Amino acid sequence: MAAWLDEIKWDDKGLVPVIAQDRVSGRVLMFAFANREAVALTAEHGTAHYYTRSRGRLWHKGEESGHFQRVSEIRLDCDGDVLIYQIDQEGGIACHTGRQSCFFRVLKEGEWQVVDPVLKDPATIYKH
Amino acid sequence: MAAWLDEIKWDDKGLVPVIAQDRVSGRVLMFAFANREAVALTAEHGTAHYYTRSRGRLWHKGEESGHFQRVSEIRLDCDGDVLIYQIDQEGGIACHTGRQSCFFRVLKEGEWQVVDPVLKDPATIYKH
Repeated sequence: MAAWLDEIKWDDKGLVPVIAQDRVSGRVLMFAFANREAVALTAEHGTAHYYTRSRGRLWHKGEESGHFQRVSEIRLDCDGDVLIYQIDQEGGIACHTGRQSCFFRVLKEGEWQVVDPVLKDPATIYKH
Repeated sequence: MAAWLDEIKWDDKGLVPVIAQDRVSGRVLMFAFANREAVALTAEHGTAHYYTRSRGRLWHKGEESGHFQRVSEIRLDCDGDVLIYQIDQEGGIACHTGRQSCFFRVLKEGEWQVVDPVLKDPATIYKH
């Protein structure tokens, strides 16, 4: 029934890296990990689920912030050990800092320079 | 001198995940790991360097295939533990299968379907 899940090469912790990419702009919005349950739920419900290693549990992206991610496509790489979720980002904010993307720092002149604005104060995004 | 390298949060093996993304199309072409030396060389020379875990050594992408990657930008994520290389891919082939991207399989109707063509026979790309 879930043979496609068996084809994913889970790491020694049962996880797979996931790249979340904006469906329209192609921008990489975030990078996280997912376990088998998270990937199954993503495919079933069409919203991005991950596994948060810091909190050690399933993570339905947007559960706190309301910034759910609608997943239109899931891709697997040649080695079978990395996924891409093609997403539409609710609220236009994927990063917990209130930015569109987690990748807001660019290496310039030997330092990491912040190049993207905070769109919304994280204190107003997260209740706790 | 390399304070920006110290700001990267290397994992317990001294590696950081790297997403290689096409500068023009935004397509994610591959995913790999890099160690400190690889990231330093990438910044210095402007061609993508990685660390191959299977072979346990520095990997200058293209060293065998000729498919070097010119890196125009390096980005770091909010947690400081994932990089993006924005690249121009020599030969238009990033994947060892001879495809443009390593992410050539899409989940459709409960199975992974190959949606991208092989552009060049790998046997003609790699000498050994």
